Amino acid sequence: MRHRSTSSALVRAAGIVATAWLACGPCVAFAAALPSPETVAEQLRDAAMAGHDIAYPWVSELTTRFGPRPAGSANEQQAAEWAAARLKALGFENVHIERFPITAWMRGNESAQLIAPNAQPLVVAALGESPPTPPAGLEGDVVVFPTFMDLKSAPPGSLTGRIAMVSQRMVRAQDGAGYGAAVAARTDGPQEAAQRGAIAFLLRSVGTDSHRIAHTGTTRYLDGRVPVPSFALSAPDADQIERIAALGQTVRVRLFSSASYVPDAHSQNVIAEVRGRQRPQEVVLLGAHLDSWDQGTGAIDDGTGTAIITAAAKLIRDLPHRPQRTVRVVLFGSEEVAQPAAPGSTFGGHAYADSHRAELVNHVLAGESDFGTDRVYEVSLPKAVAQSEFAKQLMRVLTPIGVLAAERLTENVGADVGPSVAAGVPGFALNQDGMGYFDIHHTPDDTLDKVDRTQLDQNVAAWAALVWLAADSDVDFRSHAAPAAAPQP
Amino acid sequence: MRHRSTSSALVRAAGIVATAWLACGPCVAFAAALPSPETVAEQLRDAAMAGHDIAYPWVSELTTRFGPRPAGSANEQQAAEWAAARLKALGFENVHIERFPITAWMRGNESAQLIAPNAQPLVVAALGESPPTPPAGLEGDVVVFPTFMDLKSAPPGSLTGRIAMVSQRMVRAQDGAGYGAAVAARTDGPQEAAQRGAIAFLLRSVGTDSHRIAHTGTTRYLDGRVPVPSFALSAPDADQIERIAALGQTVRVRLFSSASYVPDAHSQNVIAEVRGRQRPQEVVLLGAHLDSWDQGTGAIDDGTGTAIITAAAKLIRDLPHRPQRTVRVVLFGSEEVAQPAAPGSTFGGHAYADSHRAELVNHVLAGESDFGTDRVYEVSLPKAVAQSEFAKQLMRVLTPIGVLAAERLTENVGADVGPSVAAGVPGFALNQDGMGYFDIHHTPDDTLDKVDRTQLDQNVAAWAALVWLAADSDVDFRSHAAPAAAPQP
Repeated sequence: MRHRSTSSALVRAAGIVATAWLACGPCVAFAAALPSPETVAEQLRDAAMAGHDIAYPWVSELTTRFGPRPAGSANEQQAAEWAAARLKALGFENVHIERFPITAWMRGNESAQLIAPNAQPLVVAALGESPPTPPAGLEGDVVVFPTFMDLKSAPPGSLTGRIAMVSQRMVRAQDGAGYGAAVAARTDGPQEAAQRGAIAFLLRSVGTDSHRIAHTGTTRYLDGRVPVPSFALSAPDADQIERIAALGQTVRVRLFSSASYVPDAHSQNVIAEVRGRQRPQEVVLLGAHLDSWDQGTGAIDDGTGTAIITAAAKLIRDLPHRPQRTVRVVLFGSEEVAQPAAPGSTFGGHAYADSHRAELVNHVLAGESDFGTDRVYEVSLPKAVAQSEFAKQLMRVLTPIGVLAAERLTENVGADVGPSVAAGVPGFALNQDGMGYFDIHHTPDDTLDKVDRTQLDQNVAAWAALVWLAADSDVDFRSHAAPAAAPQP
Repeated sequence: MRHRSTSSALVRAAGIVATAWLACGPCVAFAAALPSPETVAEQLRDAAMAGHDIAYPWVSELTTRFGPRPAGSANEQQAAEWAAARLKALGFENVHIERFPITAWMRGNESAQLIAPNAQPLVVAALGESPPTPPAGLEGDVVVFPTFMDLKSAPPGSLTGRIAMVSQRMVRAQDGAGYGAAVAARTDGPQEAAQRGAIAFLLRSVGTDSHRIAHTGTTRYLDGRVPVPSFALSAPDADQIERIAALGQTVRVRLFSSASYVPDAHSQNVIAEVRGRQRPQEVVLLGAHLDSWDQGTGAIDDGTGTAIITAAAKLIRDLPHRPQRTVRVVLFGSEEVAQPAAPGSTFGGHAYADSHRAELVNHVLAGESDFGTDRVYEVSLPKAVAQSEFAKQLMRVLTPIGVLAAERLTENVGADVGPSVAAGVPGFALNQDGMGYFDIHHTPDDTLDKVDRTQLDQNVAAWAALVWLAADSDVDFRSHAAPAAAPQP
């Protein structure tokens, strides 16, 4: 039912574009000629902003039907099969699933309590990849470090038999810069604590909210494993431990986790295309990830990303004519548990870059949507074209929907397309407002009710316009001497 | 340490008042005479609004030292002993603890999962007083009722072997009216479901937030017990079940709870006074409750209430002269688990009214602070004095801090002083803004970080002014022929 209504709405969305063409004043005498790429980009933008029923129904069905989709789980695999079937039904070409092996990490039961100076429950979440406690749990006195630097300054052996806690606060910042500053304590805290003798590691959640909800996230292996059981505390729980310690009392905690590993699991990338009409071997790559953390339903991380790029590509697919180049949608698997900088196919981004390495030279541009559902406020293009006619044309289309040209460029555009970009593919970023993202990120609270449909549509508008302009051009995003996008004959 | 710094700050707060007296223009020639009660009320108001260190340190220490304080728990008893010691240290008189027996309810481990159409974790909280599941848990298909009326309309036997779920939404309203409309499903839902054959009861949390946090709360006994295991779902979990059901799929759920009862427990009320200088037998009663639900730390429910009335009474106690009547602070125990309308000493409010019944005729006025920390926006006085000179005087003092005279009066001023009011004691209410209260109420999120110090101080200001004016008067709040508050000689 939903498939059918979506399809008919897409026909309507395409109809908006076709009707606009027939009505466009200056070109009415040349009705047989194609409108300019910029005109089509404006029409795509306006059709997306006017509301369409691709993106929201996608994220609603994905999160409702499959709930959490941790890497390697049955839910992730079923979601990938559903996504492939939906992409086919939406009219994409070359739809297929590419599997790759992973070791899956599975949360078990977990709990934490203050046991001295009195009994109080604590809200925690085991950090991704971290090992279980002994079956009876473990207990220890807590040593609180206000910053990660303080932990790294602690002498060897100074934490023997104790539990290290880093209570560093994450800074709220529009571009998400606070995350980078805080997350090292999560990725590297367990090994820094273990190297000083700690029996477990506690971390104030890397997040900006103040709810009794803990933010999980992956941690880095040392010698092939995370060395000690490691947990995120909710912000109010971290506050409480800090306050008790400030009263001069010893804080003693009991921790339990039955997390486990599944070594022979697999994950998968889902691929779909709108084939280019002139140079189909040239690919504009759009990425987002289908897997999610296991406590929420992965609505903003990254259900909306998969919805945004799928909807943008579908609006392009439904135009009366194809772009010159191929638009390729990749819904990556196993993004969340990727070992930072690990070699080989440990996650979807690496698996894609490895198995498509020969094609990467023809990947003309790559971008990724993985920052929730808030509005795009800024676009970052490859340096080669940042001052080009292409950029000016793009800004004429995006400025009316509230998008700035980024002053600080980056081609570090995300974890999924990162390995492809590292192999030389130029990267772009449609930067989203991140003021609220880290209230929800990696928590049980990542659910559909957090998705704002108006802002979701603005994302689709920006993506559809940019991807269309790049795909229907011969701009070389690698070269400094990029020609302006030529109007269609 | 904190006791000492608090005491010296109280001396400073009292100093503000004393200094203001010496400086007051018109009365400078009569320095030996007392200032008018209205002048003192203004000074108390201004001292509280200027910031003081009674209320916030109280709620910080209470919630940090003892955490959750469920009725009958060691934490509740230790908090009562701490409170009594603090009240003595603050200079109150007649400080003592009055014990009463209760059957305590204790949350155990609990969990819930969707098991069909696929596996998804659910966030739940067992409702207060509800029995455990069998040790292996229980499973059933869910029947969703959009409103509690729909459940009550279901035929007998129609839920046999199934799990009833009410997904009615609570309405956000400034005066908290949405709570009354929604809470019947919580108190009476378990028995309505059981009477139709259901094996368990699920409820969309009675709350206004959209976080993965469930709101607990007590349920009503039928034949001496709650008939079936009963749980609140977080709002996003209720949404998810509704959406899956709307896809035409059968929702099957597994529930587990190891809740238990402790029949020989006790709770206690903590009492403290500022004795009246002329008619000490006449009592103005200030109530709040020391117990809390067990998942948060009871910061806004009702740590702040205990802080507000204690701070208001302490500011009055530190004046250079006592009020004519006695100001009595009662920090009630076992409020949260009170059986609605149950006879006898099942909770602190009943225990107080029972053991002080002979005194109630001399209780001239009673009020309760149990609605969080948001600002007072309205005052409701007993009908007898709503149009009196006393009311006009009070409004002259409270209008500058943003308090209206209520157009709709109530003497139903709360659960703790309710049994005393039911026995004839006139009730007043300082109504607080409730737009945000039910985002937090009865959840793990009820923690200190939710307390706004500026609004907390405004509450203390309103309480101190009102209580002083009532206590330093001979107004008869029971009689329609209330005389105006006479200026002091």
